[in-house]
Amino acid sequence: SPQTKTEYGKRGMTLEEDINQSNEFYLAKGLAVIHKKPTPVQIVSVHYPKRSAAVIQEAYFKTASTTDYNGVYKGRHIDFEAKETKNKSSFPLKNFHVHQISHMEAVQKQGGIAFVILRFSLIDETFLLDASYLFPYFKSGYKGRKSILLSEIASCGMALPLSLSPRIHYLKAVDALYFTSIGS
Amino acid sequence: SPQTKTEYGKRGMTLEEDINQSNEFYLAKGLAVIHKKPTPVQIVSVHYPKRSAAVIQEAYFKTASTTDYNGVYKGRHIDFEAKETKNKSSFPLKNFHVHQISHMEAVQKQGGIAFVILRFSLIDETFLLDASYLFPYFKSGYKGRKSILLSEIASCGMALPLSLSPRIHYLKAVDALYFTSIGS
Ligand SMILES: [Mg+2]
Ligand SMILES: [Mg+2]
Repeated sequence: SPQTKTEYGKRGMTLEEDINQSNEFYLAKGLAVIHKKPTPVQIVSVHYPKRSAAVIQEAYFKTASTTDYNGVYKGRHIDFEAKETKNKSSFPLKNFHVHQISHMEAVQKQGGIAFVILRFSLIDETFLLDASYLFPYFKSGYKGRKSILLSEIASCGMALPLSLSPRIHYLKAVDALYFTSIGS
Repeated sequence: SPQTKTEYGKRGMTLEEDINQSNEFYLAKGLAVIHKKPTPVQIVSVHYPKRSAAVIQEAYFKTASTTDYNGVYKGRHIDFEAKETKNKSSFPLKNFHVHQISHMEAVQKQGGIAFVILRFSLIDETFLLDASYLFPYFKSGYKGRKSILLSEIASCGMALPLSLSPRIHYLKAVDALYFTSIGS
């Protein structure tokens, strides 16, 4: 029914839409400057019609070599990837590329903040988890489980409740994890 | 002659190619993690052939809302735009968009480092200039000159000599401008 459709529409924003809306909110309030990177595309053929805009007529999607989001917050470099799963008790890591993981390692080595935002869409749970928890799963020779348990994510990360604006106030979790010294 | 062509090829790298090569060098040496953002494209139509990769069949170039390059260096967020001119004594500012300027202002307010790399290609001179020198030209009501004099760029910025690898060692200028206190 239309009723059901409307209700679904209300809560059914994708994680990417939630993050983009939050980033716009942060930018407008002067709280952070964080953007989604454009989708990388290999352009093969472009047509230049007279008196109108150039049309890309052949192009292919390229694998991203970095994470999707980055920017600056309180002087610190922020870098993260966001992913959703329909699983209910663990997050499969096959959607992360090795080069995204290496990128986040390199960012942390350089003194930046790197994390992932993971959403379990069927149970409406979203978490921010420091990227370092993923690194062991991608070490060469690793033979174990290819997913992180929800229980581990919940205990090592921070839950991100949904709100109206910003839709996911993930900087609150960033404050707690990276800007507060233990015991203070 | 082929001789001339080869020589031209040797020195005729674009600024973007020089910067990309330098960023690869920095990344490989663990000195910095700085990437060029993908060209933003509005995808209109995608064809999904059986047994082969998706083909984008209609897309348009979008105006970038941020700068082309960003990343992290010694814990600091780095953000910059690179542009070339064929002018010889001043750099025209019409190639910068207002939203790129606002972006660099927002980055600096958030504690990030924002600058531009400007190349005078016909006289083989490249400079790094803190973004703040551009801001006055884009203030509403500004009625003055629409280009920055080479002499001002040379005195307020840092010259970036070409070398073999990295082709432009712009982090040296970043060190001098942002990591050294005056008088030390
Ligand atoms: Mg992604
Ligand atoms: Mg550009």
